[in-house]
Amino acid sequence: MKTVFIISYRGTRYCGWQVQKNSISVQKVLQNAIEKVLGEEVSLSGCGRTDAGVHANEFYCHLDREITNIDHERLPLAINTVLPDDICVLKALKKDDDFHSRYVTKGKEYKYLIWNSSFKNVFMEDTALKYPRLIDTEQLNELAKPLIGKHDFSSFMSKGSKIKDRTRDVWYFKAEREGDLVSFKIAADGFLYNMVRIIGGTLLEIASGKIKTPLEEIIYAKNRGAAGYTLAPHGLYLNKVFYD
Amino acid sequence: MKTVFIISYRGTRYCGWQVQKNSISVQKVLQNAIEKVLGEEVSLSGCGRTDAGVHANEFYCHLDREITNIDHERLPLAINTVLPDDICVLKALKKDDDFHSRYVTKGKEYKYLIWNSSFKNVFMEDTALKYPRLIDTEQLNELAKPLIGKHDFSSFMSKGSKIKDRTRDVWYFKAEREGDLVSFKIAADGFLYNMVRIIGGTLLEIASGKIKTPLEEIIYAKNRGAAGYTLAPHGLYLNKVFYD
Repeated sequence: MKTVFIISYRGTRYCGWQVQKNSISVQKVLQNAIEKVLGEEVSLSGCGRTDAGVHANEFYCHLDREITNIDHERLPLAINTVLPDDICVLKALKKDDDFHSRYVTKGKEYKYLIWNSSFKNVFMEDTALKYPRLIDTEQLNELAKPLIGKHDFSSFMSKGSKIKDRTRDVWYFKAEREGDLVSFKIAADGFLYNMVRIIGGTLLEIASGKIKTPLEEIIYAKNRGAAGYTLAPHGLYLNKVFYD
Repeated sequence: MKTVFIISYRGTRYCGWQVQKNSISVQKVLQNAIEKVLGEEVSLSGCGRTDAGVHANEFYCHLDREITNIDHERLPLAINTVLPDDICVLKALKKDDDFHSRYVTKGKEYKYLIWNSSFKNVFMEDTALKYPRLIDTEQLNELAKPLIGKHDFSSFMSKGSKIKDRTRDVWYFKAEREGDLVSFKIAADGFLYNMVRIIGGTLLEIASGKIKTPLEEIIYAKNRGAAGYTLAPHGLYLNKVFYD
């Protein structure tokens, strides 16, 4: 058996999930907290990487063995007492040995938050992108339609990634407004490096008229240069991780 | 004429609105920003004080003269460029000389946010009170009914205040739930020192059964000792200020 943790974190202070030299990562801080509680070394595997400043409402990670000296119901509260304010263990689960946070994922949902106003939101400076031009969420949903389904998303991948198979199956895209707060959710069987942020930036640039090329053609180009800018990391949340 | 500012702020870093020696106040930081923009000294009067850690979605303050060298439409954006992330000028208005942010107020609405879960919300550690016991908002609304109307609220005033007339007219109390986030709003023609936070703490203690005395009797006692604890400041927001 393995012990699996569902966690949430505010990414502002971190270099991302993954351990990096000379930086504070969520993984390292969480490992330290679990080690304090268990009194032994642990090494976690996460469901993916997140970039510096990106947040998670739901992130899965696991240990390659089962924790037996504390029951799984009490584990989250015990670990939370030694975690800083910006990381929280929401749940600890037992899973079979064939479970792996990353390799058996069916897909993920990301959420992006935009404070759509000329005036900053003093409570969301690190957790939503400030964007003054009025966003029409119906228009955004309409513009995003060509994304749905299986496509080669090379146009929406930052340079530097070595991934060869760039075909992903996008399940849905849904933009909504609640007052001045605009959000969009996008789910797929997987995402390329910076894919959500480049899709968001491209849609906003098509909506504003800065990009005249329709989205179908940008997808078809399979060229990062055809798409728009990469939205800032601090509006992005890993929102759900899907398993069987 | 006078120039009036409507502002919002996240109170976490501040000793409150009011200037205090050896502390950072919202008033001081805002005055400095306006002075930078205007190139001359200014002194603001606020619609009230707020305690350290308390936030404002809407706070009024004014200058005893009209700013004429920058038009009022452009003023907020100019001042916001020199303000820190946690204070925002939302609007600048011209008002007649008989206006005063504090003395002509008809009333105020406060909002209190509670993250009602055993697990912290990593995005609201400084902006909502974490409270694990399940809150029934219908019960809270029912329990709060005796507050409505004109009463002597001495039981709900922290010691140290010298105010003699403790009669206030409470207009409404409304608790609501959205997922794990519980909020209550309370409006009145005025509030005593810590009144909202003591009312909130008392209602939660009646709801949990810790206090057996009904709210009518606690009001009638006119004695701080009869009421419950004072809720923490970081869940409290000045939400609206009413003028004619």
